[in-house]
Amino acid sequence: MLHGADYNPEQWEKYPEVLEEDIRLMKLANCNVMSVGIFSWAKLEPEEATFTFEWMDKLLDTFHENGIFAFLATPSGARPAWMSEKYPEVLRVEANRVRNLHGLRHNHCYTSPVYRDKVTTMNTKLAERYAEHPAVIGWHVSNEYGGECHCDYCQEAFRDWLKEKYQTLDALNDAWWTTFWSHTYSSWAQVESPAPHGESMVHGLNLDWKRFVTHQTLDFYRHEVKPLKAVKPEMPATANFMELFEPLNYAKMADDIDIISWDSYPLWHDTSDPSYRAAYTAMNHDWFRSLKDGQPFLLMESTPSLTNWQPISKLKKPGMHNLSSLQAVAHGSDSVQYFQWRKSRGSSEKFHGAVVDHLGSEHNRVFQEVKELGENLSQLDEVVGTTVDAEVAIIFDTENRWAVNDSQGPRNSGVHYERTVTEHYQAFWEQGIAVDVIDSEKDLSKYKVVVAPMLYMVREGVGENMEKFVKNGGTFVTTYWSGIVNETDLCFLGGFPGPLRKTLGIWSEEIDALYDGQTNHVKVIGNNELGLSGEYQAKELCDLIHLEGAQALAQYGSDFYAGRPALTVNDFGQGKAYYIASRNDRSFHKEFFEKLADQAGLTRATGGTLPVGVSAQVRTDGENDYLFLMNFSGESQDITLAEGEYQDHVTGEAVSGNVTLTSYDVKVLKK
Amino acid sequence: MLHGADYNPEQWEKYPEVLEEDIRLMKLANCNVMSVGIFSWAKLEPEEATFTFEWMDKLLDTFHENGIFAFLATPSGARPAWMSEKYPEVLRVEANRVRNLHGLRHNHCYTSPVYRDKVTTMNTKLAERYAEHPAVIGWHVSNEYGGECHCDYCQEAFRDWLKEKYQTLDALNDAWWTTFWSHTYSSWAQVESPAPHGESMVHGLNLDWKRFVTHQTLDFYRHEVKPLKAVKPEMPATANFMELFEPLNYAKMADDIDIISWDSYPLWHDTSDPSYRAAYTAMNHDWFRSLKDGQPFLLMESTPSLTNWQPISKLKKPGMHNLSSLQAVAHGSDSVQYFQWRKSRGSSEKFHGAVVDHLGSEHNRVFQEVKELGENLSQLDEVVGTTVDAEVAIIFDTENRWAVNDSQGPRNSGVHYERTVTEHYQAFWEQGIAVDVIDSEKDLSKYKVVVAPMLYMVREGVGENMEKFVKNGGTFVTTYWSGIVNETDLCFLGGFPGPLRKTLGIWSEEIDALYDGQTNHVKVIGNNELGLSGEYQAKELCDLIHLEGAQALAQYGSDFYAGRPALTVNDFGQGKAYYIASRNDRSFHKEFFEKLADQAGLTRATGGTLPVGVSAQVRTDGENDYLFLMNFSGESQDITLAEGEYQDHVTGEAVSGNVTLTSYDVKVLKK
Amino acid sequence: MLHGADYNPEQWEKYPEVLEEDIRLMKLANCNVMSVGIFSWAKLEPEEATFTFEWMDKLLDTFHENGIFAFLATPSGARPAWMSEKYPEVLRVEANRVRNLHGLRHNHCYTSPVYRDKVTTMNTKLAERYAEHPAVIGWHVSNEYGGECHCDYCQEAFRDWLKEKYQTLDALNDAWWTTFWSHTYSSWAQVESPAPHGESMVHGLNLDWKRFVTHQTLDFYRHEVKPLKAVKPEMPATANFMELFEPLNYAKMADDIDIISWDSYPLWHDTSDPSYRAAYTAMNHDWFRSLKDGQPFLLMESTPSLTNWQPISKLKKPGMHNLSSLQAVAHGSDSVQYFQWRKSRGSSEKFHGAVVDHLGSEHNRVFQEVKELGENLSQLDEVVGTTVDAEVAIIFDTENRWAVNDSQGPRNSGVHYERTVTEHYQAFWEQGIAVDVIDSEKDLSKYKVVVAPMLYMVREGVGENMEKFVKNGGTFVTTYWSGIVNETDLCFLGGFPGPLRKTLGIWSEEIDALYDGQTNHVKVIGNNELGLSGEYQAKELCDLIHLEGAQALAQYGSDFYAGRPALTVNDFGQGKAYYIASRNDRSFHKEFFEKLADQAGLTRATGGTLPVGVSAQVRTDGENDYLFLMNFSGESQDITLAEGEYQDHVTGEAVSGNVTLTSYDVKVLKK
Ligand SMILES: [Zn+2]
Ligand SMILES: [Zn+2]
Ligand SMILES: [Zn+2]
Repeated sequence: MLHGADYNPEQWEKYPEVLEEDIRLMKLANCNVMSVGIFSWAKLEPEEATFTFEWMDKLLDTFHENGIFAFLATPSGARPAWMSEKYPEVLRVEANRVRNLHGLRHNHCYTSPVYRDKVTTMNTKLAERYAEHPAVIGWHVSNEYGGECHCDYCQEAFRDWLKEKYQTLDALNDAWWTTFWSHTYSSWAQVESPAPHGESMVHGLNLDWKRFVTHQTLDFYRHEVKPLKAVKPEMPATANFMELFEPLNYAKMADDIDIISWDSYPLWHDTSDPSYRAAYTAMNHDWFRSLKDGQPFLLMESTPSLTNWQPISKLKKPGMHNLSSLQAVAHGSDSVQYFQWRKSRGSSEKFHGAVVDHLGSEHNRVFQEVKELGENLSQLDEVVGTTVDAEVAIIFDTENRWAVNDSQGPRNSGVHYERTVTEHYQAFWEQGIAVDVIDSEKDLSKYKVVVAPMLYMVREGVGENMEKFVKNGGTFVTTYWSGIVNETDLCFLGGFPGPLRKTLGIWSEEIDALYDGQTNHVKVIGNNELGLSGEYQAKELCDLIHLEGAQALAQYGSDFYAGRPALTVNDFGQGKAYYIASRNDRSFHKEFFEKLADQAGLTRATGGTLPVGVSAQVRTDGENDYLFLMNFSGESQDITLAEGEYQDHVTGEAVSGNVTLTSYDVKVLKK
Repeated sequence: MLHGADYNPEQWEKYPEVLEEDIRLMKLANCNVMSVGIFSWAKLEPEEATFTFEWMDKLLDTFHENGIFAFLATPSGARPAWMSEKYPEVLRVEANRVRNLHGLRHNHCYTSPVYRDKVTTMNTKLAERYAEHPAVIGWHVSNEYGGECHCDYCQEAFRDWLKEKYQTLDALNDAWWTTFWSHTYSSWAQVESPAPHGESMVHGLNLDWKRFVTHQTLDFYRHEVKPLKAVKPEMPATANFMELFEPLNYAKMADDIDIISWDSYPLWHDTSDPSYRAAYTAMNHDWFRSLKDGQPFLLMESTPSLTNWQPISKLKKPGMHNLSSLQAVAHGSDSVQYFQWRKSRGSSEKFHGAVVDHLGSEHNRVFQEVKELGENLSQLDEVVGTTVDAEVAIIFDTENRWAVNDSQGPRNSGVHYERTVTEHYQAFWEQGIAVDVIDSEKDLSKYKVVVAPMLYMVREGVGENMEKFVKNGGTFVTTYWSGIVNETDLCFLGGFPGPLRKTLGIWSEEIDALYDGQTNHVKVIGNNELGLSGEYQAKELCDLIHLEGAQALAQYGSDFYAGRPALTVNDFGQGKAYYIASRNDRSFHKEFFEKLADQAGLTRATGGTLPVGVSAQVRTDGENDYLFLMNFSGESQDITLAEGEYQDHVTGEAVSGNVTLTSYDVKVLKK
Repeated sequence: MLHGADYNPEQWEKYPEVLEEDIRLMKLANCNVMSVGIFSWAKLEPEEATFTFEWMDKLLDTFHENGIFAFLATPSGARPAWMSEKYPEVLRVEANRVRNLHGLRHNHCYTSPVYRDKVTTMNTKLAERYAEHPAVIGWHVSNEYGGECHCDYCQEAFRDWLKEKYQTLDALNDAWWTTFWSHTYSSWAQVESPAPHGESMVHGLNLDWKRFVTHQTLDFYRHEVKPLKAVKPEMPATANFMELFEPLNYAKMADDIDIISWDSYPLWHDTSDPSYRAAYTAMNHDWFRSLKDGQPFLLMESTPSLTNWQPISKLKKPGMHNLSSLQAVAHGSDSVQYFQWRKSRGSSEKFHGAVVDHLGSEHNRVFQEVKELGENLSQLDEVVGTTVDAEVAIIFDTENRWAVNDSQGPRNSGVHYERTVTEHYQAFWEQGIAVDVIDSEKDLSKYKVVVAPMLYMVREGVGENMEKFVKNGGTFVTTYWSGIVNETDLCFLGGFPGPLRKTLGIWSEEIDALYDGQTNHVKVIGNNELGLSGEYQAKELCDLIHLEGAQALAQYGSDFYAGRPALTVNDFGQGKAYYIASRNDRSFHKEFFEKLADQAGLTRATGGTLPVGVSAQVRTDGENDYLFLMNFSGESQDITLAEGEYQDHVTGEAVSGNVTLTSYDVKVLKK
């Protein structure tokens, strides 16, 4: 189990005692890996073609002597000032078509030939010098890829990408429905990226631009990795991802990346419900694990205390650091890493929590909690490589997200796609049911239940995929505002939800939007097959549907559509397809998904229900199960285990029956 | 009575079955007119000087064969991409002096010689080819004119306009009070349009720039119409206007436009009071009817269901489509038209409500409601050409609006001019009293009552106009923050309300602004001549006035000006002039304007009071009266008619005494 | 005692009767000084090198004939249009690197050689012509300096300034901690001012840029003053300052300015607590007085009624004009002056309150209140030149303010530095204890108590200064988030609060941020040495500290740090050092600073407590004390005087024992 942090000793060049002290503290904190070289270009190549690797040599040698491993970064996340000065083309052009000045980070054009050349030179040198260094265990490629460039190089690359995709302008015009407002393109040169002072309303263009940004970022990643792999193909590479990151479609990048890693900064102890915050974070972990079909990921960055960039920098309460770190492990992480090891003395992130504070010693709470976690992690080595077996998949589809958020209507003040997906996820999390979080094009055959909230965009083959899944006995759940458009945002003709209509056995005639604060009611129909008995609140969007084979389980309680179906189920093939017609409150999700889990025979980690705020997750190698019990509630909680004997993985004691978890406590039980 | 929609079959070129099906559905929906060619430039001239009118030929011929008429649009609302590519000067320059890229719509420079040439060529061709086509009944010129351009051509045109207006720089400097902050211009070339990074605080400049924008837009309209009229002078032309549109002074454009038309998208069923929403919409209708002195207008666009661009796209509840459409007719519309006939499959407005949904058939609620309305409209042909006789005029003056909203002080957080005008209007609407909504320069002689809320700007002659009106027996009502500046925003010297002071018999010494949530009280004085008896709340602005011949009807109840006049009346000549010194609550408007209506002997549509949320409006040809009773309340309501026999215009039944209207019901009674 | 206003008769050139009438009204209003020539460049030099001083000659002669004095302004606050037209370099370039168009005011580059030349020519001519004019008593240099320019001239000047400060790039890189994110500069030319599309996160750069802006503004001021002083060195010059102005460090400019003056526009009668508003205004007065170590200042601008630029333009209630004007005098002003004498007829500030309204006569409330104040002021001539003896200093440090507000973390949603300083100030204001408001580098030896809220930045020597102050018997109070960084925003290593740690006897381990609405409790410890007995609320930031010699007086009541010290005192040398660990509520400040004042033996103006909303301030020449009693509460209040006999300075009556002040009343008592 890896435990470590980003480390930039080059910031402390003028403080020569620091490196030695850091090594002592790393060992004290049970840290065994450091990510180095991130943003170090100016130290590695202070002038053009003048390379200064000596400090890195020394650093890696020192690590090796002390049993510490390294992820070695390529430094492309920021350029040295000399490069921007000499080659302005390396700087990004924003959507307003103004080229940035030098500054910040992530401010490069990923198409610029000069920048690509410079990256190749640098990465080649790094690979040649360090690929075989015994301390180096992987490549940390750049840092948190993101952003876009609208320069002429990028416009040209975008047009080339479009030509390859559409072949003819006529096909592009059809796909983007450009006849509207006379937007028809008559030459490729007329196509430009979206701009605030140009085109912004052609959704097909917006979507394809976002696809291109992912494509070009991935292309840049491949360009970065090429010289690295040339030297040592088997050395794994990662590019650290971010929380529910919208601008890039990670699902398209996952194949090229050897190990998924991500940077997790939950708003622990914020004013939301602790269950929501914990479930939301869990969903992120599950998403990253699912990107490579269950392969363990790395928690590449996190903070042992607080961030400097959130609106409120709240301290982690005692225990929360251990709990939140082990939550990552519970969901599939094989590491706990931090940004950063030692707080910078100056510049923008100097107040970002780190293992070593400005204090400079081990004598503070944060260091001690890191140290204790390190001890716990060192006992979990056998969990490394195990995965999570999920019977449920939630569709969280980035292209759908782009499309549904870019849509004009039916509720421009917010359809809350991400929050809605999370609410569906949370209903399983509360039951201790493992979930994969996947793109809509993924294979569904291994799941018992697939939930696709607000699946607005149904791309080629996806409807067929769902249909086949249900036909073969799966349980499929989707909601209002699904099955509306195809991959270029053209509406399905002939009746919504388009390709899902047959499977669901319903037709959606129209959809009503509610103002904030307005509600309708969802009343269950007596003796419904799921045994639902409550009455729930609906808000935001209410779909007005007709039954076409499905049966209604609940109906609306008010407005002119009172009595019309609000929840339906369709028996289709060997399976069942549910349609939730409105955005409902938490009590609906709770009851509905509990009944559904019973009906579908889903496995719960503890076999039964869990107290509020408690999560139970299982990692397994197929033989051994590691049950993580985690208490996010802020109060002590009693959990009833399933029948059988467990072994506390830390104390080694046998456990069965009831387990008590104090506030922010976590237990790892082996079965 | 016209019934129809915008129609763009060129979007469905690749779906050849659509046109035939549309014709079938149009007839089924009782539609008899379509607006075609809007935004069709790229289909009419796909390459420079290559014209493709064949599809339009076929479309119009098909219409003619099926008894459907057409408003034929000029396509200038959007340019083809080739034009922007070859002639960048056709693109607009925003106030930041950056030229837009191609995109969106309404993105043209209205001064550009190239654009004007292209428009002349296109419009000439359209006129020559279609002016005599039997299906074509009018020109739909461009679409929703709006916006402004700050390019060099426009700067030059602005300076020319200023030279003609002021003749000398000295006169301009005096009129704009440029000595302040050393703003004196010493050459015409120094004058530039307002800019966020340049001049923005010279109110005279801001005002004249807005006047110029209207002037130049109108000049462009004349340029558009010229080739059309050259071929067939008697063919009417319209340019569709928008709800309380601020950037253009429609009052200056009305003479040039043969028929007023407008696009109405009320926020039905929003969270405001239904009476307010209905009255606000009614006021718009009355404004557009009043623009050409009562000549019926066209409802050029509306939606049968919802829009895609409002924050919340709310469905029209059953009945509301019929009610809202007939409301337009009640206030003077001779048509009900939609944007659009068939929902686009893609691009930005694909979710805007249309007669034919993506479903593609007549089998949905929206289509059926359109169809029923079509039947109702077909029985109202004799209403066409009738007008509304109003004894009351409300001054809603666009130049005043520009000035009062641009003013710094006395309440930068909001004086709410538009809302205040609406609240005054609503007090008449609730009584079933017909109102004209007019510019302050209009002839007042035909009215009994003229209400001018917040008439901050009193242009040359307007004060005299009001004075004469009262002298001759009229009742004039105005409020705080009136009579402050002349046409270039120079304050009247010697005491406010300047030119209105004598007529009103009061002097305004100073004005107090209240924070949101703060109130004062308006207490009526016992035995006041109007018989007012309530106590009201004042907010936002309280004028501190002195009587100069007027008598006080009410006084303030608190703050250091407690006891000072809050409402006054001045007997002047044969008439009366009222001054409302503060922004008051609805209960004030209700009681005050009821008493005033009694005193002035105003005609109420039903002779008496109306239930809350019910509107009564009369169209007349002088001989026959058509009484529209409309229930916006969401509940069933009983209305007592004036003495006499009515005939239900739909059922033909005789009606008298009491009439019951269910929720969203409307009845048309002939007398 | 000066009483007067800004006066721009050149706006009324076309109204020839105005000047004579104004002279009559000035005398009637007891006005004896006018500021003239502000923004008059276009009237003084209407074309390049054509000067028209005749109107100014006449104006000053007329003043002299009528016993009115003048502050003569240099007109650099706005340029004539011909200058911008001919020399675009005089216009400012904003941070986005776009040059402004001509317009507004304060829109000049202060580095531009052309602009500096033009200023020299103009100021030389003004000095030569008017320095000896008998009416002129001082120079009013430009107007409200502010803003910044990012043009190439300014970039070059910035680099020169940096070179002088740091000598080497290496030193600059170290000071700004540029290694972070590879920001290391390898040539001076790479250094640019902060930009929204360039660098914005290097806090050392941000800070130095702000320092440079002050430096360059001061340099421009010196450039302005040079030709003035060349003619008559003894004629005093001032540059009017603004309320808690952030962009310039006035402390660095005070030495060069002969007399401090400022423009005060409090939000009287807003929705905040009247005590807060009055104390906040008082703090500003004290700040400006303290800039030159107690030398009286001028109230250069204020309004007799309302402003035109605040969100709500509220009238001053009767009495408030007198009260607020005398408040300025009470705190050290030797004048009461207005913007402006006569309301402009047009342009942006025409609704800003003035002595003479658009009415044009003396027959309104505002004029009468100005006149009465004038009478009162004419009886206070002996107060001129007296000062305020303060035993307390509050540190309000502009560089600290820049740094603490630019900091990322620990509470980006707001640490509220200015409000926090004010709350500390208010606790003394409520007790009638005089306070100086000073920069952290000032000499502290004359004070008994020094309070330094949130002293985040502790520059070289400042910690030593505080330490010496306490050692010598002073009482020092500071708070959480103090002693964090040095002058270039580099964190102190080894434990916070860095240089203050020893004096305070505590170590700050970490700091918790609370969400808006969240609170902790501060519970006093029984028998604490100050005798505190209450329980208080903490919010926003809670520092987690350890005692290192200090003793705890109070502790936190909740969260995981319940029981840890929340308020400490350290006996150090002859003095005491207090540490307030959290942002506390008003009741804490009230009780804590009352006990502290007792303990430190501070002098209260009335010897005892004051009713809520009443302020008591003393000006003194060492022999005579002038006690100002001021009632801001809006209600009548009784005040108990200290033993002894006072003389009412207006009525001449003897006063002792109890004094009653009606609402907004003020009394000046001489002892
Ligand atoms: Zn690029
Ligand atoms: Zn233009
Ligand atoms: Zn400059």
